[in-house]
Amino acid sequence: MNLGRVVGTVVATRKENSLDGLRFMLVRHLDEKGKETGGQVVAVDAVGSGVGEVVLVATGSSARQTQVTDKKPCDAVIMAIVDSWDVGGKDAYRKSDDD
Amino acid sequence: MNLGRVVGTVVATRKENSLDGLRFMLVRHLDEKGKETGGQVVAVDAVGSGVGEVVLVATGSSARQTQVTDKKPCDAVIMAIVDSWDVGGKDAYRKSDDD
Amino acid sequence: MNLGRVVGTVVATRKENSLDGLRFMLVRHLDEKGKETGGQVVAVDAVGSGVGEVVLVATGSSARQTQVTDKKPCDAVIMAIVDSWDVGGKDAYRKSDDD
Amino acid sequence: MNLGRVVGTVVATRKENSLDGLRFMLVRHLDEKGKETGGQVVAVDAVGSGVGEVVLVATGSSARQTQVTDKKPCDAVIMAIVDSWDVGGKDAYRKSDDD
Amino acid sequence: MNLGRVVGTVVATRKENSLDGLRFMLVRHLDEKGKETGGQVVAVDAVGSGVGEVVLVATGSSARQTQVTDKKPCDAVIMAIVDSWDVGGKDAYRKSDDD
Repeated sequence: MNLGRVVGTVVATRKENSLDGLRFMLVRHLDEKGKETGGQVVAVDAVGSGVGEVVLVATGSSARQTQVTDKKPCDAVIMAIVDSWDVGGKDAYRKSDDD
Repeated sequence: MNLGRVVGTVVATRKENSLDGLRFMLVRHLDEKGKETGGQVVAVDAVGSGVGEVVLVATGSSARQTQVTDKKPCDAVIMAIVDSWDVGGKDAYRKSDDD
Repeated sequence: MNLGRVVGTVVATRKENSLDGLRFMLVRHLDEKGKETGGQVVAVDAVGSGVGEVVLVATGSSARQTQVTDKKPCDAVIMAIVDSWDVGGKDAYRKSDDD
Repeated sequence: MNLGRVVGTVVATRKENSLDGLRFMLVRHLDEKGKETGGQVVAVDAVGSGVGEVVLVATGSSARQTQVTDKKPCDAVIMAIVDSWDVGGKDAYRKSDDD
Repeated sequence: MNLGRVVGTVVATRKENSLDGLRFMLVRHLDEKGKETGGQVVAVDAVGSGVGEVVLVATGSSARQTQVTDKKPCDAVIMAIVDSWDVGGKDAYRKSDDD
C-alpha cells in the first residue's frame, strides 16, 4: 500500500455502469515523513474518507477486494484512514496534529 | 486509476482475434493540475471516449472488468470520461472550459 | 498497452516446460512520436511479429489472455502489430513509411 | 520481491472490515548493498517481523497468497525475514552484524 | 519479462510456510546491451539457475504459474536461462562469451 493524502474529488458522469455510485478521490502520495512525493492516483473510496485525510491506497487486483469495488474496473482503492505512523520509534504523523 | 487525455487512435489490423472491434486510444497522463506528465498508455475504450477528452484509465487485471475487455489481452481501459475535478476545494479541471 | 519496436529475439533453451515453443522478442518502448524511450521488455509473440515491426505489448495477468500464453509464466505479450497511429489528427507513425 | 527494512508501524482504526487485526508496517526499500533506495511501501506483516528487521516484500496479487491476507485488499506483504544475502560470493548483509 | 543477471542468493529462515525449500536469488536487471541498469529484484528460481547466469524474470501473478511457485506469495520467478539474444541481427549477448 501507499501512503497518500486525499486532495480532491473527480466527477465522471459517463462511465462503465458497474461504477455508478462510487466516489473517485484524487490522492497525492506521501513519503515516510508525510511530504508529497509528486506522484498521485485516483482511487475509489471504500471507507468514507474525506478531503485532507491521510489514507492507505491498495492497487492492482487487490483494489477489487472490497465490498464496493468487487468485480469492477477499479485498480486503486482507499481501504484505510491513517491515524498515525512512526519511524524509528518517533511519531512521523498523527492525525490530530494535522487534520 | 490515472488521469489522462486522449490524443489519438492506434490502428492494428493484425492482432489477437479476441481484440477484433475494440478501439485503441493513445492516452497521455495528466497531473493534478491537468498538465501532461510525459507518460502515456494505449488503452481500450469502454465508454465511447473521443480525442481531446479527459478520461480515467484503469490498468492491470482491472482493465478486464468491463463488458468489452473481459478475458482479453488488454491491460489498460478507459472506464470513465472526466467532467471535472477539484484540488483543495477549487476547480482544477472542468470539461466545458477545455473541450 | 505500450507501444514498442521489436529489435531482436532472445534464445533460452532451459526454461519452464510450459514455455516450450514460444518466441521471446526483445521490444524497445516507443513514445507518442515513435522514438525509443530507453525502456524495454522481453515479450512473447502471439501474432507472428518480426524484428523491426512496431507492436503493442500487454503486461501482467493480461499477458496470459492469449492462446499461446494461457496459464504460463509470461508477464508480457505482443498482442497486436501496429499499422499506424495519429496524434491530434496527424499521422505520428505509419507502417509503410518505416518498415 | 523487494528487499526492505521495517522502519515503523502504521495505525489505522477505520478500515475495510476484513483488515481488522492485521499489522501494517512501513518498509523502506534496500539496494543490493543494503542501503535505502528512497522508495517505500506499507506492507502487512505475515511472519512476525519487527522494526529494524530486513525483510522480503511481495506485491500485487501475490501479496494475498498468505493465510493472513487471503482475499483482502492488501497489495504488499512481508513474507520472509532475511538472515543474509551475498553478492558475488561475498556477504552483503548478515543479520547479526546489523540488528 | 526482464533480462537479469543472478548475482547472489538470499537466505531467509523465517518465512511463510508455503515458501519452504524455494531458492531466492538476487537478480540485477540488464539493458539490451547486457549492462546492469541499476534495478534489481529477488526472484524464486524455477529452472536451476546459478550465480552469474543471465536469466528471464517474470513478475506479478505470472510469477505463480510455475510448479514451484503455484499459489505462493511470490511475485517474481526465474523461468528461463538465457543462451543469447541479438539486436538488429547482431549478437548482443551469448552465454559462452560471458559465463
